[in-house]
Amino acid sequence: MTPDDSDSSDSGLLAPGWAGSPAAHASGDSAYLRALLDAEAALTRAQAALGLAPAEAADAVARAAEPARFDVRSLAERARAGGNPVIPLVADLTAAVGEPYGPYVHRGATSQDILDTATMLVAARTLEPVLADLARTERALAARAAAHRDTPMPGRTLTQHAVPTTFGLKAAGWRSLVLDARDRLARVRAALPAQLGGAAGTLAAFEGYGARDATALTETYARAVGLAAAPLPWHTLRTPVADLAGALAFTAGALGKIGEDVLTLSRTELGEVAEGSGGGSSAMPHKANPVRATLLAAAARRAPQLAATLYGSLAAGDERPAGAWHAEWEPLRELLRLTGGAARDAAELAEGLQVNTGTMRRNLDLTGGLIVSERLSAVLAPRLGRARAKALLTELARRARTEDRPLGELLSEEPELTDLDLAGLTDPTQYTGFAGALTDRALERR
Amino acid sequence: MTPDDSDSSDSGLLAPGWAGSPAAHASGDSAYLRALLDAEAALTRAQAALGLAPAEAADAVARAAEPARFDVRSLAERARAGGNPVIPLVADLTAAVGEPYGPYVHRGATSQDILDTATMLVAARTLEPVLADLARTERALAARAAAHRDTPMPGRTLTQHAVPTTFGLKAAGWRSLVLDARDRLARVRAALPAQLGGAAGTLAAFEGYGARDATALTETYARAVGLAAAPLPWHTLRTPVADLAGALAFTAGALGKIGEDVLTLSRTELGEVAEGSGGGSSAMPHKANPVRATLLAAAARRAPQLAATLYGSLAAGDERPAGAWHAEWEPLRELLRLTGGAARDAAELAEGLQVNTGTMRRNLDLTGGLIVSERLSAVLAPRLGRARAKALLTELARRARTEDRPLGELLSEEPELTDLDLAGLTDPTQYTGFAGALTDRALERR
Amino acid sequence: MTPDDSDSSDSGLLAPGWAGSPAAHASGDSAYLRALLDAEAALTRAQAALGLAPAEAADAVARAAEPARFDVRSLAERARAGGNPVIPLVADLTAAVGEPYGPYVHRGATSQDILDTATMLVAARTLEPVLADLARTERALAARAAAHRDTPMPGRTLTQHAVPTTFGLKAAGWRSLVLDARDRLARVRAALPAQLGGAAGTLAAFEGYGARDATALTETYARAVGLAAAPLPWHTLRTPVADLAGALAFTAGALGKIGEDVLTLSRTELGEVAEGSGGGSSAMPHKANPVRATLLAAAARRAPQLAATLYGSLAAGDERPAGAWHAEWEPLRELLRLTGGAARDAAELAEGLQVNTGTMRRNLDLTGGLIVSERLSAVLAPRLGRARAKALLTELARRARTEDRPLGELLSEEPELTDLDLAGLTDPTQYTGFAGALTDRALERR
Amino acid sequence: MTPDDSDSSDSGLLAPGWAGSPAAHASGDSAYLRALLDAEAALTRAQAALGLAPAEAADAVARAAEPARFDVRSLAERARAGGNPVIPLVADLTAAVGEPYGPYVHRGATSQDILDTATMLVAARTLEPVLADLARTERALAARAAAHRDTPMPGRTLTQHAVPTTFGLKAAGWRSLVLDARDRLARVRAALPAQLGGAAGTLAAFEGYGARDATALTETYARAVGLAAAPLPWHTLRTPVADLAGALAFTAGALGKIGEDVLTLSRTELGEVAEGSGGGSSAMPHKANPVRATLLAAAARRAPQLAATLYGSLAAGDERPAGAWHAEWEPLRELLRLTGGAARDAAELAEGLQVNTGTMRRNLDLTGGLIVSERLSAVLAPRLGRARAKALLTELARRARTEDRPLGELLSEEPELTDLDLAGLTDPTQYTGFAGALTDRALERR
Repeated sequence: MTPDDSDSSDSGLLAPGWAGSPAAHASGDSAYLRALLDAEAALTRAQAALGLAPAEAADAVARAAEPARFDVRSLAERARAGGNPVIPLVADLTAAVGEPYGPYVHRGATSQDILDTATMLVAARTLEPVLADLARTERALAARAAAHRDTPMPGRTLTQHAVPTTFGLKAAGWRSLVLDARDRLARVRAALPAQLGGAAGTLAAFEGYGARDATALTETYARAVGLAAAPLPWHTLRTPVADLAGALAFTAGALGKIGEDVLTLSRTELGEVAEGSGGGSSAMPHKANPVRATLLAAAARRAPQLAATLYGSLAAGDERPAGAWHAEWEPLRELLRLTGGAARDAAELAEGLQVNTGTMRRNLDLTGGLIVSERLSAVLAPRLGRARAKALLTELARRARTEDRPLGELLSEEPELTDLDLAGLTDPTQYTGFAGALTDRALERR
Repeated sequence: MTPDDSDSSDSGLLAPGWAGSPAAHASGDSAYLRALLDAEAALTRAQAALGLAPAEAADAVARAAEPARFDVRSLAERARAGGNPVIPLVADLTAAVGEPYGPYVHRGATSQDILDTATMLVAARTLEPVLADLARTERALAARAAAHRDTPMPGRTLTQHAVPTTFGLKAAGWRSLVLDARDRLARVRAALPAQLGGAAGTLAAFEGYGARDATALTETYARAVGLAAAPLPWHTLRTPVADLAGALAFTAGALGKIGEDVLTLSRTELGEVAEGSGGGSSAMPHKANPVRATLLAAAARRAPQLAATLYGSLAAGDERPAGAWHAEWEPLRELLRLTGGAARDAAELAEGLQVNTGTMRRNLDLTGGLIVSERLSAVLAPRLGRARAKALLTELARRARTEDRPLGELLSEEPELTDLDLAGLTDPTQYTGFAGALTDRALERR
Repeated sequence: MTPDDSDSSDSGLLAPGWAGSPAAHASGDSAYLRALLDAEAALTRAQAALGLAPAEAADAVARAAEPARFDVRSLAERARAGGNPVIPLVADLTAAVGEPYGPYVHRGATSQDILDTATMLVAARTLEPVLADLARTERALAARAAAHRDTPMPGRTLTQHAVPTTFGLKAAGWRSLVLDARDRLARVRAALPAQLGGAAGTLAAFEGYGARDATALTETYARAVGLAAAPLPWHTLRTPVADLAGALAFTAGALGKIGEDVLTLSRTELGEVAEGSGGGSSAMPHKANPVRATLLAAAARRAPQLAATLYGSLAAGDERPAGAWHAEWEPLRELLRLTGGAARDAAELAEGLQVNTGTMRRNLDLTGGLIVSERLSAVLAPRLGRARAKALLTELARRARTEDRPLGELLSEEPELTDLDLAGLTDPTQYTGFAGALTDRALERR
Repeated sequence: MTPDDSDSSDSGLLAPGWAGSPAAHASGDSAYLRALLDAEAALTRAQAALGLAPAEAADAVARAAEPARFDVRSLAERARAGGNPVIPLVADLTAAVGEPYGPYVHRGATSQDILDTATMLVAARTLEPVLADLARTERALAARAAAHRDTPMPGRTLTQHAVPTTFGLKAAGWRSLVLDARDRLARVRAALPAQLGGAAGTLAAFEGYGARDATALTETYARAVGLAAAPLPWHTLRTPVADLAGALAFTAGALGKIGEDVLTLSRTELGEVAEGSGGGSSAMPHKANPVRATLLAAAARRAPQLAATLYGSLAAGDERPAGAWHAEWEPLRELLRLTGGAARDAAELAEGLQVNTGTMRRNLDLTGGLIVSERLSAVLAPRLGRARAKALLTELARRARTEDRPLGELLSEEPELTDLDLAGLTDPTQYTGFAGALTDRALERR
């Protein structure tokens, strides 16, 4: 694509997170155009099915509703006048249908019926690759968790070594978040509704055209377009949009947790994991950057605020709000493609991740045994008294650091403790608690 | 409460939305203190139940865990050193229990186990009055919708009269949002989990104290504290917090829609509704401000950003993050009390709302019949041809405005239209479409 | 532009707010590409100026840095690997320059030097039309304020008529916000800095290529690219981005205030203003929607959250953060074009606004004189005593409403008040206080 | 403070970031009460100064406006009815003044005049300790930067070692952000305006009481209360609030950058810095958590969304909005105390930070010389040709990792390179570029 200075379009140059992804293709302007036309075609088809319009009209609209016949940029610019793209689209589609069926285009509907329905269609279509990528991610993480069920590594809290954990438990935790995301997205997706209300949500025009049953009308339309039927027109009852916002922000955040952990664990000093194919640097030949994790972290930083705008649009006044509705369109699309790109990155990351068990093992020893101080406290307290045990450990921890000696060695010099299995007690690999059992239990979830 | 300059506390002076509400009482510092103590007591009780601690220890802790024995402000200030309030609380509670059972306080747990559990307890307790107030709101709105099933009023889109609707349909729509909020909050509330993971989520210390089964431990604790049992420690798997965030932001937004509509409809010029007891003004004796609706609108403006911070904390690194967790505490509490206050205001608003049906009827006539132009277009198009019908209506609409004459009168002067029932066609009360049927259907939902 | 299903691009179909605007053209992918190339060309030029590279290299790079030679979409997709678009661009540009000067492309720099510099260039270029449109808006509003200095209209608080104000004062207030926005944007624009730090902000590579003075290097580069010179590389000192975020969010919010007011004042029931050319409706020939105001309101709902993401990226770790930087790119561009589109809409709105002074006058009478109850309180209190005055006014206000009689008439029946100029006292047009003087003062600001 | 179940107040139990801080004391409910009373007293004083009220009235109000005479919680609960705390406060203050001067309380003003003025007073008073703590922070960082001007450490980008930098440059960068914050806060603070507009911003009531000059009135009031005079009443021109929001969010974000870096650098594996007094852990005697940095990170995660709500309130409709204004109160206070607490933590952090130069030095060697691969590329390219140089370095980097040998050693085995000063070239401490010069230049800023 050669650039053109009069071209204001966004092809993803600033978006390595979603550029080229299936989710981006499913949510671009072209995909919206297709969905808008699908909604219009379904509207006439539904009316024909109910005897409110001739079958030929439905056929004529369906034939004309071919995306290649429409000019996205022209529609975009003509959308300014009325403030939404359906108005110029209806004009163009009516012209494309021609006489005698042109008048059946958009009959009885309002712009919002079509744009909301198209948005739900785009959401449904974009969630397909998102859910597929989450499934890939989940499978890869399940395999990691099983393979590393007993791989010890440092557990870290507030950036400091706390007690040992296992990489299996960590991966199982990541997977549980992915499954939570899947469950939330799948639930929302199953409920995505078609929109049909007419000018102010009463379906009055359809009654004028002969409709006798609001429920039949709504359900026929919803079936025709392949979405759920809503009990009420939801022009200003924005539950479906808010639910999407919440589930998508959750997903981006859940994947962001994985990204955050991978970023930390792949730091030069930690080196416990590495991305399968890190990103290079032009100037520094040695660098292998955790690029997938970086993009996951970036998506997780943006998604909450996009969702906030959508939650804010719940306060949609009147029968169609002046602004709250319009403020939804771009953030919802952005949230879809941002999350979709993140799901792609997560799948690649999970599948390609290198796990350096040797480094994990070495890092466990970095504190010279202090990483099991919790255990030693528990063992020594009944023997020495709580206060004395704590004082001793604090003192030995200090000495371990300043003298650079392992805690076990210092402990072995204490006469009261000579009968203890100090080697075992200070072995970090023997203090992973129920990590294995928790991992097993977590992996039972499907 | 007499003020004190060394007092930095917030008693609600800036918060007419929640001051004095049950939700505020259920989520104040005192309520958190009680919940923290409940969590500690349950922890020892659970260990006693599993034979890991003597029953006397459980009793001793339960006896000592009496909120009145603790000083909230002192705990708050001592929380600075370690960055969370559990550390000083454990010290004070251990001292309160004394010998010989003091050492059983908090045994095996980490601060986050207690604070997260307490937070879920506070959430559960705060959601009680919230759900009760939503139920009140829902019942009042159901009654409104039924009573005004056929009360016509202007439908408004982008601030302009569009076509008629009914107040019944509007109230039914409000109610459907309240039910959506109830469903989301109830679902989240049922799943609020206890937290138990120990220092880094492996429950290792408990194994040291004799625990043999992670599941039994977690479930016994959860039962003791009255929350759900989580499959994994969720120190950095923040699904419960994110789910709360989403459901609360949804609720605030849904109630904000009601507030937004009431604000518009009670404008001096519209006058279609009024709050039961409007707020007065010191300087202007005539004013009756829609204060409940104002506070609903204010809550809806704030909740999304509070939720965004919580969604942002999903990207919680390591086994306990340095910052993401700490950033949750205040926004979650604020979201609980903000939404709780909004539910109280919504209930009062819904119960007290005055509906001025006469004003609605008069407002329907404000455009001199233009409010049914959609209907006229549909009726005239087959008779005059689509283009001529549109031209005629546009011209007559212009004349109706400039000559200040009703559209029906102008139409009656058109020779081609003399056989039409123009009085009926231009009567706004006869163009409410399926508003009644939609209202009936919506009211079937329980 | 014919759609293509493999096309994920955004040409503005969902963005009537910015589609086709100068700001959108100045901030599209093509504009970014041009700015990236400008940055690369300036980098080599600056090195040539300092004798670190041959002049021929600078010429060769400048010649090759022609946007038409590059493929935006291909760059976007290849950006995935390394996580930013500069890496593939450097490869393509180096190839385009060829031997022997290819090696001078990007020499010494890091991707972030180029992308940050390009972003500042795009910001500077986009702010040009934004500031021009703000100037148009300001001029139009100044003319309105002057023309309507003494046009009385109802002042409204919490949706209710309070006391009279003037349209001049309202327009002067709008203008003052526009000037505040202009001042903030102009200040930020003047300080937009070039970025140059090399791999980790030490400029070390340049030293290797012979640079002897960091200040000279930075300043020469900044001059070459037409931006300010920063005292330090700002790879993780994101003041310029945060300042842009704040000034843009301010601007969108300031224009949103105008939009909000116009939406209210053009409601069917208020009718005090109308947009010059309202948006039509396909189904309802009479409708003239306040579309410009709607789009202003929509922008104001989105901008704060986009800015929040940018403020969030201030916490940028290390010498280049993994995520915080990447999360800036799209929100900053979106904020630029959203605000740019809003400035265009504001200018059209301000220039075309119809002001219906007759309707304003009629609306002042809607409360039958209650709109001046504040004044009456003040006049009657010294005469009747404060308590009695208040009681009387409250009672008469009640009667005015229920009996539908003007307050002045009821007052004239009170024997104690017969000597008062009740006609004057209850004339809303005689109670606009210092509105005129305040307007004059506000218009003195330039 | 003994808890009480009917107590819903927030004393900081969930807020280790601000509990007990000067900023919290300056912005608690007590401080707001004092500021509200100061505003009322100044209002009467200003009227007395202009001859609109007797001097005795001003004295009487000033005497009565004693915070200890008022009950914050009662005010909070009575604020519900009218939706703001000024209404009950005026009632209580009027009663406290008693006859004959009670009627002069609040005369001519509207609630918003008082609450906005009080808010600006609280902001001004809270910014005092904030600016003082920023000054402490800045001084400590300046000393660090000077002391460590030439202390080399790894520069890190995308979590990976990139090229060396110095701790001096890092500290100088932190300081420059603190100075940026100071400049922004100081500029905003100097402009904080008093609010005076009366019922709808026309100052009409004051004219009724004899005022002849709006400017004199506004300026006298502003002087009396110690704030700037605004050119227009700003009831719905919210520039001062938005400016505060931006400057505070900037400050929190700037300090968050410091926190983020300290968190990373104090990781167990990095160990390059440590907090002066880390937070302990009840269960793990060895832990010293970076608590101050954690709280800085937490504040930086929250501030942007609080600011977003405030920017969102710029779109304040009418002469006083129903919701947008009310949505400002709590977020602005929260932002003040959150930032104030962060400034306190930053000062303690900066003053107490331990810098482990030995560890920095050791970490520079972690990659066996790869950290200077950029330099080697530059040196080898002219000698070997660019392509061969890159291939050689990539191969040797691979071998350095797999064979665990320093890069310098491997290079020395290459016959073509024997004449190079490989020891010097691969010494990380000799590749800090202009870090020292940049630090010097940055420290010149005051």
